[in-house]
Amino acid sequence: MDIPSFVTSILTSLAVFVVLVLVFTWLSRRPGNATVYYPSLLLRGLDPWEGRGRGTRSPVGWIRQAFTASEPDVVAAGGVDAAVYLVFLSSMFAILAFAGIVLLPVLLPIAGTDNALEDSTGRMPPNVTHFEILSLANIEDRSMRLWAFISAVYWVSFVTYFILWRSYKHVSNLRAAARSTSGVKPQEFAMLVRDVPIPPPDQTIKDSVDSYFRALHPDTFYKAMVVTDITKADKIFQEIEGHKRKIAHAEAVYAESKTANRSEGTRPTHKTGFLGLIGKKVDTIEYCNEQIKDFLPKLEDERKSALSEKQQRAAFVFFNSRAAAASASQTLHAQMFDEWTVAEAPEPREVIWANLPRKIYDRHTRQTVVYLIVFVTVAFYMIPITAISAVTTLEKLREKLPFLKVVVDQPFVKTVLQAYLPQIALIVFLAVLPTLLVSLSKSEGIPSQSHVVRAASGKYFYFIVFNVFIGYAIGSSLFSALEKVIKNPPGIFMTLATRLPGNATFFFTFVALRCFVGYGLELSRLVPLIIFHLKRKYQCKTEEEVRAAWVPGNLRYNTRVPNDMLIVTIVLCYSVITPLILPFGVAYFALGWLIAKNQVLRVYVPSYESNGRMWPHMHTRIIAALMIYQATMIGIISLKKFYYSTILAPLLVISLIFAHTCHARFYPAFAKTPLEVASQQLKETPNMSAIYTAYIPPCLKPDKLQDVQVFEDAQSRTTSRAPSF
Amino acid sequence: MDIPSFVTSILTSLAVFVVLVLVFTWLSRRPGNATVYYPSLLLRGLDPWEGRGRGTRSPVGWIRQAFTASEPDVVAAGGVDAAVYLVFLSSMFAILAFAGIVLLPVLLPIAGTDNALEDSTGRMPPNVTHFEILSLANIEDRSMRLWAFISAVYWVSFVTYFILWRSYKHVSNLRAAARSTSGVKPQEFAMLVRDVPIPPPDQTIKDSVDSYFRALHPDTFYKAMVVTDITKADKIFQEIEGHKRKIAHAEAVYAESKTANRSEGTRPTHKTGFLGLIGKKVDTIEYCNEQIKDFLPKLEDERKSALSEKQQRAAFVFFNSRAAAASASQTLHAQMFDEWTVAEAPEPREVIWANLPRKIYDRHTRQTVVYLIVFVTVAFYMIPITAISAVTTLEKLREKLPFLKVVVDQPFVKTVLQAYLPQIALIVFLAVLPTLLVSLSKSEGIPSQSHVVRAASGKYFYFIVFNVFIGYAIGSSLFSALEKVIKNPPGIFMTLATRLPGNATFFFTFVALRCFVGYGLELSRLVPLIIFHLKRKYQCKTEEEVRAAWVPGNLRYNTRVPNDMLIVTIVLCYSVITPLILPFGVAYFALGWLIAKNQVLRVYVPSYESNGRMWPHMHTRIIAALMIYQATMIGIISLKKFYYSTILAPLLVISLIFAHTCHARFYPAFAKTPLEVASQQLKETPNMSAIYTAYIPPCLKPDKLQDVQVFEDAQSRTTSRAPSF
Repeated sequence: MDIPSFVTSILTSLAVFVVLVLVFTWLSRRPGNATVYYPSLLLRGLDPWEGRGRGTRSPVGWIRQAFTASEPDVVAAGGVDAAVYLVFLSSMFAILAFAGIVLLPVLLPIAGTDNALEDSTGRMPPNVTHFEILSLANIEDRSMRLWAFISAVYWVSFVTYFILWRSYKHVSNLRAAARSTSGVKPQEFAMLVRDVPIPPPDQTIKDSVDSYFRALHPDTFYKAMVVTDITKADKIFQEIEGHKRKIAHAEAVYAESKTANRSEGTRPTHKTGFLGLIGKKVDTIEYCNEQIKDFLPKLEDERKSALSEKQQRAAFVFFNSRAAAASASQTLHAQMFDEWTVAEAPEPREVIWANLPRKIYDRHTRQTVVYLIVFVTVAFYMIPITAISAVTTLEKLREKLPFLKVVVDQPFVKTVLQAYLPQIALIVFLAVLPTLLVSLSKSEGIPSQSHVVRAASGKYFYFIVFNVFIGYAIGSSLFSALEKVIKNPPGIFMTLATRLPGNATFFFTFVALRCFVGYGLELSRLVPLIIFHLKRKYQCKTEEEVRAAWVPGNLRYNTRVPNDMLIVTIVLCYSVITPLILPFGVAYFALGWLIAKNQVLRVYVPSYESNGRMWPHMHTRIIAALMIYQATMIGIISLKKFYYSTILAPLLVISLIFAHTCHARFYPAFAKTPLEVASQQLKETPNMSAIYTAYIPPCLKPDKLQDVQVFEDAQSRTTSRAPSF
Repeated sequence: MDIPSFVTSILTSLAVFVVLVLVFTWLSRRPGNATVYYPSLLLRGLDPWEGRGRGTRSPVGWIRQAFTASEPDVVAAGGVDAAVYLVFLSSMFAILAFAGIVLLPVLLPIAGTDNALEDSTGRMPPNVTHFEILSLANIEDRSMRLWAFISAVYWVSFVTYFILWRSYKHVSNLRAAARSTSGVKPQEFAMLVRDVPIPPPDQTIKDSVDSYFRALHPDTFYKAMVVTDITKADKIFQEIEGHKRKIAHAEAVYAESKTANRSEGTRPTHKTGFLGLIGKKVDTIEYCNEQIKDFLPKLEDERKSALSEKQQRAAFVFFNSRAAAASASQTLHAQMFDEWTVAEAPEPREVIWANLPRKIYDRHTRQTVVYLIVFVTVAFYMIPITAISAVTTLEKLREKLPFLKVVVDQPFVKTVLQAYLPQIALIVFLAVLPTLLVSLSKSEGIPSQSHVVRAASGKYFYFIVFNVFIGYAIGSSLFSALEKVIKNPPGIFMTLATRLPGNATFFFTFVALRCFVGYGLELSRLVPLIIFHLKRKYQCKTEEEVRAAWVPGNLRYNTRVPNDMLIVTIVLCYSVITPLILPFGVAYFALGWLIAKNQVLRVYVPSYESNGRMWPHMHTRIIAALMIYQATMIGIISLKKFYYSTILAPLLVISLIFAHTCHARFYPAFAKTPLEVASQQLKETPNMSAIYTAYIPPCLKPDKLQDVQVFEDAQSRTTSRAPSF
């Protein structure tokens, strides 16, 4: 890529970004869009326009707000997880900024004044770009100037260690603070028990759980709730809920038709068959009401049978103090490890009920199988895609889906499709991949949503670093690269060292595109905006439906974090080769932090709170990126025939020691709850009954609250010997 | 080695064994030797001759007794550790016996009827032994008979899995039974705390420990004992004890001289200088009494200063129930991992006080350094030995130690010494090695004696397997072997495969020697017997000194287990190559079990009780031996150009899965105390004060028991809020 086209692409990205920011500024002022741009505020009952006249709603008002919002504000809006994600972004910003401050003024002149790229006449060949002149490529072999580059690698590494250590400490404190707040959180009083052994025939699982834990924790045991098989109950419950929504919708339509025609109106009807397309035509409201009437007793029966007959071999055990729950969940209970395994309870809202009863061996087997599948996917994903696109030719597509004929037969569309079919297959695969990884992680038997997100994020990280970064740089599919790696493992870094400098402009453009266009789209929320307005116009009739159309998701860490991590890997690896990439990296994380903070404060709504459990995961992967960088640099410097390149080797050892030390020092407080933290005094006496009720799955929850007592009695036939407080 | 000399060596070993057993039978009947052959019985206050007339003291009486003794008897005599060691021996016996039952009748005919070793005329060359004819070496390349050998490897492996699984289960139950006995053991009420953070200036360490644990365990905390620097106090205490012993000895000598001379007698004297050789001559009794008088106040001062000023950053924390202690020692206390690290308390008698205050980073560093030293020792130990023997020629020895001249100048001695100096250096090295490994392990910062023994045993296992087994088989020093291994890691198994069959007779002889001569010496206890009688005759004057001369040590697992493990490795590796080795292996473990049981019941006295903590350590190493065997067999079968040799590869994977499964299932109950086990009811109300006193180091323990209260007050200035029971 030559300089003009490179500059053009960067400028285009920048222009797109400016346009999108302007669009955002204009759209976000319109009250009709409040639900798109301020859903988090609305859901927390805050007024988006509060205290802001026309004047303060300046185009940069959101920037000022994002800057002035403190960490407690962020925690209040998006939870500790969001705050930790911002710490991650600001740490990456700090690392790259500190690196840039030293590397740019030092390395650019050193590289610029050397002349390895000059031809024999002492002039630069015309095809050499300024990028290359200002990079390591312009340093002559065996030049003493390489010492500056070696020192630069040390500088970047130690800056990374320093910032990461501080951040880990900061996140640890954040987590401890969140865990020791005086508010009552149900999960802090509960413990998850799995692998409950089969009880003797005269005992139910519930009884055996109760008697086991009452014997072991006579003073602190409050109650136990056995997990039941709620698949069927949940299905009926969803049917009823669906019918309720249909009635509400139909009533709104009916009311509308009355006002429109100033008459009796037409009662809405639908067909009962497949997708409402076939079958008997019925009056929607009447039909649904009847259906609900039919289903309600079924649900009641199913509830009862679930509670008594469908008990599973897993349970939540509740304690009357946080310290007791923390201590119990860290204590080995049974002599045999495959019985009565205990763990900290996840939040009620993020429990994956179906995974709880899975046995320990089942979990291990599933995990192994999933890792194999992921490995095969990461390594060989190109094979099925090329195969699919080879088989699915346009002709066959026409045969199979005749209604596409009209479109496909147009000459222009035909050409485009024929040319791009493999790429389309790839794009579809890449779009589906995160969801696939989430469902793969879920099938491992992980008990909580937040853990699934972490597991999926880890898998996506492997995919993206291996395929996008190493794959593109090596210029071959990972398949053939793997062959080389198996023959000579350290060889991959030599290959990277050979190929990386030549690919600089591609990755420059990549970072710029991600930064400007990606964040521009993120900020302006054009896609959610369009979807919302379309849905409101054509689909939503009731308040609830409108609300469902605008309620935002959470931050989707499972794709967000690996994508950021890819940028970290790219920018670190190029930081010393072509220091000019550093400003782009700095811009990416500066903008990223600003926009993520804005989105956390105003848009996204967390669907769980893991108290920063994501951080150790990110920390490990940052160090992995750092080590890829260090190993690549050893290769690059030794390619310059510089014998001192091995002076960089200790860095790899230092990185490992650093990772190990951080893990030993900080990680236990993420994996377990320290007693120090759990023993903080509570402001109020915990309402144990409410804590217990929080863990009843929605489909089993009785409609009226006074019925909870009935439910509890059914669940907990034996009452606690030490009823606490 | 040809057949006649091999048979001769085996028969010699057997003859030595028979002679030693007869010697044992004769000597052990003499009442004067009771302290050598029945010390354990004497110490437990039992009469060695009880209920046994002349008739029952038959030559095989001890065999009958060893057979009839039940496992509870063994536990009573030697603790769970001894019982677990016997389980180890009997498991190995079972594995080899089951292997032999199938392999001998199946493989010997298959090998014996093939004719790979015949020369072209169809006759066996005269230098081929019967061993070789009955071994894998006699199978022709690509022969279908190799299927039998492959199946044999599978049979041996699955027998091993089966026996190991049963044994692990059995040992787990043994451990659980021992841990849940209703007797009060101080260590079950205590927890070891290390890495206590530096307290604020106005607090002592004691205060900060007290307040920290009282806050976190308000209901179960009993008291804390801060570890103090007792180096100086212990030194003074040892001086006093030494002087006391000297007085007792001198008084006995004095009394003897009175009786002998029927007069006043001569008061014993000694010189105060170095080793009693130089210095002023003094009356021993008077001098020592004065010394004690001098030292006593010093000890008192030192005691006080140790308690108040020399507090270290480690402590024992006592709880008022076993379950509370078990739960607390498994719970993460501090948010930072390098503060307030907790662990189960070791038994008072096996605490290594000097190691307790070591900080976590110090411990990690020491461990790394020790592992490096051990690696270097294992890999390169031949270098210093050859270097030493090269430098220390006989001439130089003569110059340095002139008094050796008389001996060294004799022509015979001279020749022998010159020829054997390197061998002598090697023997000295091998004799010193176990002690060296123990002190290396101790310097890692391990808090208990039993853990040090395990660590030293692991190190000795590496040494012995790599140097004796692989080293001898490969026929070169490990140094040059290492070079090959680094270049091509799986190559070592191919080398083993090439070399092992040729070395069969060496290892046969080795196993037989270890079995017959080793166990003969063990049973007859000739060396302790001679030492005891010499000491009693020439040195011991008081009852206490005689007692010190015969008190036996413990089983010394640190050398015993690795040596047994070496035999396991050898016999397993040869089991299919030359099945004739199996009877020797079976004999080794059968005799080993019998003699070890006899020694446990009558001789050795355990110096600590780790409740079978050694088992997981042994289990892992047995599987390591099994995997060496499996990998070697792949090599050997593929050397026969048999393409199906890879059919053995899954065995390696199965072994890993087996090891992992065992670890996951059984190991946690060895690393931690399951709450199930700790919650068993106690027979008696524990005497907390006695539990506390048990952990006072001997040099700090007041002479009179009523003074303990004073000591406690000094140690625990603040009293417990919940004084328990």
